[in-house]
Amino acid sequence: MQRTLVSETIREIGKTVKVSGWVKTKRDHGKISFIDLRDRSGILQCVISAQTRNYEEAKLVRDQWVVELTGKIKARPENLINSEIETGKIELEVLEYKIISRAQELPIDVSLEDMHLHIETLLDYRNLTVRNEKVGAIFRVYAQTLKSYSDFMRSQNFLEIKTPKLVYAATEGGANFFKVKYFEEEAFLAQSPQFYKQAGVSFFERVFEIGSVFRAEPHFTSRHVNEYIGLDAEMGFIESCEDIMKMLEQTMKKMLRDVKDNCEKELRLHEASIDIPEKFPRIKLSEALDILKNKFNKVSEEFDIDPEGERLICQWAKEEKGSDFIFLTHYPVTLRPMYTMPDPENPKETLSFDLLYRGVEIATGGQRIHDYDQLKKSLEKKGLQPQDFKHYLEMFRYGMPPHGGWGLGSERIVQKILGLKNIKEAILFPRDVKRLTP
Amino acid sequence: MQRTLVSETIREIGKTVKVSGWVKTKRDHGKISFIDLRDRSGILQCVISAQTRNYEEAKLVRDQWVVELTGKIKARPENLINSEIETGKIELEVLEYKIISRAQELPIDVSLEDMHLHIETLLDYRNLTVRNEKVGAIFRVYAQTLKSYSDFMRSQNFLEIKTPKLVYAATEGGANFFKVKYFEEEAFLAQSPQFYKQAGVSFFERVFEIGSVFRAEPHFTSRHVNEYIGLDAEMGFIESCEDIMKMLEQTMKKMLRDVKDNCEKELRLHEASIDIPEKFPRIKLSEALDILKNKFNKVSEEFDIDPEGERLICQWAKEEKGSDFIFLTHYPVTLRPMYTMPDPENPKETLSFDLLYRGVEIATGGQRIHDYDQLKKSLEKKGLQPQDFKHYLEMFRYGMPPHGGWGLGSERIVQKILGLKNIKEAILFPRDVKRLTP
Repeated sequence: MQRTLVSETIREIGKTVKVSGWVKTKRDHGKISFIDLRDRSGILQCVISAQTRNYEEAKLVRDQWVVELTGKIKARPENLINSEIETGKIELEVLEYKIISRAQELPIDVSLEDMHLHIETLLDYRNLTVRNEKVGAIFRVYAQTLKSYSDFMRSQNFLEIKTPKLVYAATEGGANFFKVKYFEEEAFLAQSPQFYKQAGVSFFERVFEIGSVFRAEPHFTSRHVNEYIGLDAEMGFIESCEDIMKMLEQTMKKMLRDVKDNCEKELRLHEASIDIPEKFPRIKLSEALDILKNKFNKVSEEFDIDPEGERLICQWAKEEKGSDFIFLTHYPVTLRPMYTMPDPENPKETLSFDLLYRGVEIATGGQRIHDYDQLKKSLEKKGLQPQDFKHYLEMFRYGMPPHGGWGLGSERIVQKILGLKNIKEAILFPRDVKRLTP
Repeated sequence: MQRTLVSETIREIGKTVKVSGWVKTKRDHGKISFIDLRDRSGILQCVISAQTRNYEEAKLVRDQWVVELTGKIKARPENLINSEIETGKIELEVLEYKIISRAQELPIDVSLEDMHLHIETLLDYRNLTVRNEKVGAIFRVYAQTLKSYSDFMRSQNFLEIKTPKLVYAATEGGANFFKVKYFEEEAFLAQSPQFYKQAGVSFFERVFEIGSVFRAEPHFTSRHVNEYIGLDAEMGFIESCEDIMKMLEQTMKKMLRDVKDNCEKELRLHEASIDIPEKFPRIKLSEALDILKNKFNKVSEEFDIDPEGERLICQWAKEEKGSDFIFLTHYPVTLRPMYTMPDPENPKETLSFDLLYRGVEIATGGQRIHDYDQLKKSLEKKGLQPQDFKHYLEMFRYGMPPHGGWGLGSERIVQKILGLKNIKEAILFPRDVKRLTP
């Protein structure tokens, strides 16, 4: 007999089916046992009774055992319907059962709605805790955001590219990169696909990449990890930096709309809601710092915004503009990498932005310098050596259009959509300073 | 005036438009110059004549300069239509022009249909050579395969996951991994998402991943690189290894069908054709070795197939079965990793396969051991230490269904579809033993 998915059993009332999956929970009521069986499509209540062959043995089944159950699908009495269970209107009267795989004593009860685990425990036992409904929901939302991102990029005529993660130079000239022994040479792990996606512009104008990003920064925060998945894009023939922000705004809206439409159950499990503002406000960093000073009495020592400032300016955007998002623009040249285009109207500022969402920066982007001489000078001003960047610089010898793009952190989006305390909850197997396992 | 894409100009006959892009070529005919302008959508012939403002200066424009041209779209006299150019039925009579970015003297003429470059030259100047039509076509086909793969996986209810590339142990226990200094520890670059995608099975049954794979093997061949993009999948609740092969066969057919339907121009540029066999033949490795011996007089010293054997057995499959693909199954236990399921009917062989396409192995897969004790024993038999794999082993304590999957090399597919001599041609910025740049 072919396996029937749990979600399909609702159409099989009165018929005999075979289902298989994990025992989410088992409850004994005298001679009867109830099993909540979980497969990829949902949960089904299955009843073990005297009618079940080898009934006494069947009762030994425990949580997380993998079983195959054959029996009849029956409508359940109205008053017994458990509304928590999706397919709660039916149950399986088990006739035959087969144990596919046993589980040992479980260190954690993953059947609970909320496991209330310490983040380290949650991650130490990731192979098990990911079976929890609420935890699994995170990765369904995550998969949706990946799909939406690429769908939207393609709809806007961006070509998907894949670029190397083993690189010869640290993209931004910074010190926080991982070193790799690469045969007889030393290589670095890419901190960003920046140089390579700019090359993509020269052959396809618009490119996007979904790929691993490695940052060797020794952070201990709830919003940093040392390896993440970047959603990058770069587009040529722009009129201004606004073209990039507009495209990113549309991208974010599409992602949120899709999650809202397709992940209702997952959002409900996390008591999360999605608000899509009509327009993301844009303010200069200098204006943001003024608002922080005047409205929140928060004065920055340096001309920059810190994590608390980001939280407050998002609070302001929500209260004053009704938006969970805000673009901060015109970061000073000193805070931006050498390839960032200075504002012709004020060369101390750049045509760049950060996009903040619910208190956290989720994207950084801007217009890039496309003129060879200007780029070389900018590099030198930052104290970098042009010969270290000769392969990168080379492409600007061959004619490059005005262009720009962004790097978006995929996991932060999901963290903020679902209101997860720590970004590591949004990563299957996160990596931080202290964590390389499992 | 808004920019019009070249592909849209065909609808603008008689109207004034602005186009922008790269000068692919320029031909001077006395007082008139013809520019083939390339943007992301195609190529348009643009005519510089006495009607063009600053006509004399406009004539200075050279290959690969980025320009913006405004003028009138005109139908071209029938006898002058260049069928090589897609939008050859029209041309732009340039009235205004603007130079956006100049190019220096080009070391390579990328306007040629075939550049006939040595592979090292092609890659040394990748930032430039990628602008060549035929080279660019490779990456359009590549993007299509990525899209098709994820589309099909999703349609079959596989969830997209992303797993870490910085890992604590070498997946297969082999020696050919890159070492990374990871803060105070030593980490490795993932050779495969094997362990992590198996974990994915335990929460979603069916998962897929598109991600970077790193192999520190010092190969110097036309089919190896040290970093590539793996198309991985893993599925639970299988009845047999055949379930996996069937799914992979469907996946490959979908990818080929999509490339055939959507990349006609690209295939034409490469004089490539796609044949989709009705069914991929499956033969045991032992049968393949017999065929090689009897039909090709090729005897292997060891019980294994070498690259020449793979080429010949593909030749056999094409001639005898009319198929560009062939599954070789039942590799001996000694040739497969510790997690491979032995065949209960012959424990010296495994329920595993390689998929070959046009002479080259493009995928490896099989059923995995899902029982904790069996896996531990298999590991020990391979001379590995269970404590080195404790995080991996752990998940098998909690109930795992029969499962299996594959790892597919994305670049080899494109190489073989287009008949590229070297896999590096199918990678934007490939990495090999000697190449970390550009």
